[in-house]
Amino acid sequence: MFSKIDHLGVAVSDLDAALALYEGGLGLLVHHREIIEEQGVEAVALQIGETNIELLRPTREDSPVARFLADKGPGIHHIAYAVDDIVGALSRLKEQGVRLVDETPRIGLAGSKIAFVHPKSTFGVLSELVERS
Amino acid sequence: MFSKIDHLGVAVSDLDAALALYEGGLGLLVHHREIIEEQGVEAVALQIGETNIELLRPTREDSPVARFLADKGPGIHHIAYAVDDIVGALSRLKEQGVRLVDETPRIGLAGSKIAFVHPKSTFGVLSELVERS
Repeated sequence: MFSKIDHLGVAVSDLDAALALYEGGLGLLVHHREIIEEQGVEAVALQIGETNIELLRPTREDSPVARFLADKGPGIHHIAYAVDDIVGALSRLKEQGVRLVDETPRIGLAGSKIAFVHPKSTFGVLSELVERS
Repeated sequence: MFSKIDHLGVAVSDLDAALALYEGGLGLLVHHREIIEEQGVEAVALQIGETNIELLRPTREDSPVARFLADKGPGIHHIAYAVDDIVGALSRLKEQGVRLVDETPRIGLAGSKIAFVHPKSTFGVLSELVERS
């Protein structure tokens, strides 16, 4: 069902400082940068192998990433799994009793379809499904 | 310097329940299971694409993963980057002012050489370098 990790979401409060580390220090390549108004974040995707690290900076105080930063401080926010058929994958997870945040997909970075799984069902790991367009 | 994500470490308190989700529910394949006495963890590696999810259960109360669980509860513990030359990579990070937990590598899962970078230098993300044997 899950072919690879699509990306890791990392919550940061200082995007420029984080970029200095991931791009300058670790040598990763930025290939996408976008403000996602609906989620209240600015996201910067850096490629590493077949996956990406997405640095996430909140653009407003009531966004989920802003609340995460206020509660836990900066750090790894979620794991996103690549799927070919997000509607089918959500349906199979639901059959297995997994609790979903999003019962139907919404639009994420670069026009992808995304849905979040509730961390209560995944032992504290906020998990996302991504179907790339 | 970093070719791919080697694995994601996920701290769990109930390994069997977590395996039921990752192996049974998500369909990932377990390919290694080992108790690492020095780190006080039992680790189970599940393959996904070119990387792995490593479920980490503490085997004693004073281990770093036990302290993480006590402080933060279950969740994503660290990101591990694959490197070809861990000694060279540590040296370059140190030159860039990155704070290291391990100045010299030690032995991790399946005989790999590993070293941790301090989360204070990586915006709250505990980061590990791994050179596979």
